[in-house]
Amino acid sequence: VAALGEFDLIRRFFERPGRAGTAVLGVGDDCALLAPAAGALAVSTDMLVAGRHFFPDVDPESLGHKALAVNLSDLAAMGARPLGFTLALALPEVDEAWLEGFARGLFALADASGCELVGGDTTRGPLNLCITVFGEVPPAEALRRDRARVGDDIWVSGTLGAAAWAVADRSEGLVPADAGHRAQAIACLERPQPRLALGQALKGLAGAAIDLSDGLAGDLQHILDRSAGTGPGPLGARLEWPRIPCHPVLDAVSDERRRALALAGGDDYELLFCAPVSAREPIMALSARLGLALSRIGRIEPIAGLRLLDANGLELAFDARSFDHFR
Amino acid sequence: VAALGEFDLIRRFFERPGRAGTAVLGVGDDCALLAPAAGALAVSTDMLVAGRHFFPDVDPESLGHKALAVNLSDLAAMGARPLGFTLALALPEVDEAWLEGFARGLFALADASGCELVGGDTTRGPLNLCITVFGEVPPAEALRRDRARVGDDIWVSGTLGAAAWAVADRSEGLVPADAGHRAQAIACLERPQPRLALGQALKGLAGAAIDLSDGLAGDLQHILDRSAGTGPGPLGARLEWPRIPCHPVLDAVSDERRRALALAGGDDYELLFCAPVSAREPIMALSARLGLALSRIGRIEPIAGLRLLDANGLELAFDARSFDHFR
Repeated sequence: VAALGEFDLIRRFFERPGRAGTAVLGVGDDCALLAPAAGALAVSTDMLVAGRHFFPDVDPESLGHKALAVNLSDLAAMGARPLGFTLALALPEVDEAWLEGFARGLFALADASGCELVGGDTTRGPLNLCITVFGEVPPAEALRRDRARVGDDIWVSGTLGAAAWAVADRSEGLVPADAGHRAQAIACLERPQPRLALGQALKGLAGAAIDLSDGLAGDLQHILDRSAGTGPGPLGARLEWPRIPCHPVLDAVSDERRRALALAGGDDYELLFCAPVSAREPIMALSARLGLALSRIGRIEPIAGLRLLDANGLELAFDARSFDHFR
Repeated sequence: VAALGEFDLIRRFFERPGRAGTAVLGVGDDCALLAPAAGALAVSTDMLVAGRHFFPDVDPESLGHKALAVNLSDLAAMGARPLGFTLALALPEVDEAWLEGFARGLFALADASGCELVGGDTTRGPLNLCITVFGEVPPAEALRRDRARVGDDIWVSGTLGAAAWAVADRSEGLVPADAGHRAQAIACLERPQPRLALGQALKGLAGAAIDLSDGLAGDLQHILDRSAGTGPGPLGARLEWPRIPCHPVLDAVSDERRRALALAGGDDYELLFCAPVSAREPIMALSARLGLALSRIGRIEPIAGLRLLDANGLELAFDARSFDHFR
């Protein structure tokens, strides 16, 4: 493959002229200019490293999808509408087939989400992808981590544990699974669907929200930590294990492992949110409208800590350690 | 050094509570929220890789400064006022002394520039820094690459070539230089000063502008490429070599090498801008007010290409290849 220059590379794979929608200027100047209509811009950044966030041999089209999806998921968790994103890319070499696949996956999701590439940077180096995404949300309506209140129901979208199962299956070899469930689990890992429509519809219904990237238990703890300072007393949560929507691929593993994968597995990119009891009916109606399972899995309580209860109300032990890139 | 968890790491080195200025929410939620007053947000992203953009043993405080400085330089080139930035960091290990130094350099420049850290991501991986910076600028006043016109003067701030000299001196060993000039050159490389005040003051005076990251010749060519389509005929530039403000550390190298370092060296982070002849007096007044040399180095002409002329108006050969991360 002939060496492409840096600017040729941007032009060939990532510049799409005439697509200036929300951006006043697109790729090609010193900066992009964005004009948010809603008055505030939600911003999030994620860095993906080969061998840590994805297998080095992953299909580049899936990687292009996922790199943007995990960022859009942060916008979803704030109730923000996507506007645009920047992409910084370190590549060990210019592999045109790889770049074409990556760009295809990236732009398919970008187009489906109304999120335009507005700027970027490319350099040579160990494979590393850094996306920063921008969305708009009226500040007073944003879903925030610090808005959980005692008595709130705890809800989660979709199913849990499939992506973590697929990582375990790939890296250590696991129990046999139904072929269809296995394929679904791999899709959950490689092609997570950011819950953008859900996040935007939850404005006014839910208080706190977070997207599940590090595992339900750890991410719920972030909500508790951030919300605790805002009320009069301690804040904790009770989760009911029978209500946790485990992905069917987990049927074939032990109870203990199933709890670990569903509650601390990470990479689910579903939304966890807290809402008052009065919001139950509209949330169920929303679930029907979106065709997306929304499960009520527990309650915010005035007791610090996280408790997991079985069908008889007895406390179950589980490993709540979420995935941590520095442990 | 004990292993710090990812969230502890963010909290300890990068979270500074109570600093929410322009950001409605700071670090710690799924997204940061920014509220630009001027109606449009200028956005730029740069990725720095160890061994490519900086020497792996560089002083971390200088690296913290430079990582933000190169991004702020993009805002300067648009005439934008800094608001905030996100930081994504891949680290091979948690080295607390390194992180403390890095954060010190980063925040010193952030505070001096009124640019707040609003979000970030940390992960383990080969050392990689990705900063995305946000500023505000009224869209109609932004300095853009496509605004050069035939007859415009070409200007450049500061002096050129010192950073490229320091890279060459370090990597290949060069001719002896005056000790004071050598120290200045290393400072130019490690602590570039983004020309933010200049960029903002040039709104209404200059048309096109760009910051010099890849070398004057290549960066000027970007302005010519972007501006060419906007006028009736071809667009090119004439540069007068005696007017090029070479840094004094270049005095000790050959003429040919001096031209290469000053015109194609890269890493200068000065502003190159084009302005009508009528703006000469206010630009010289601005130079005096800012205490910053502004040199008129050439002219935009209706002939494609870039010409370098000596004191007698004769054309000089020079190597115009700018630094390119994929060649």
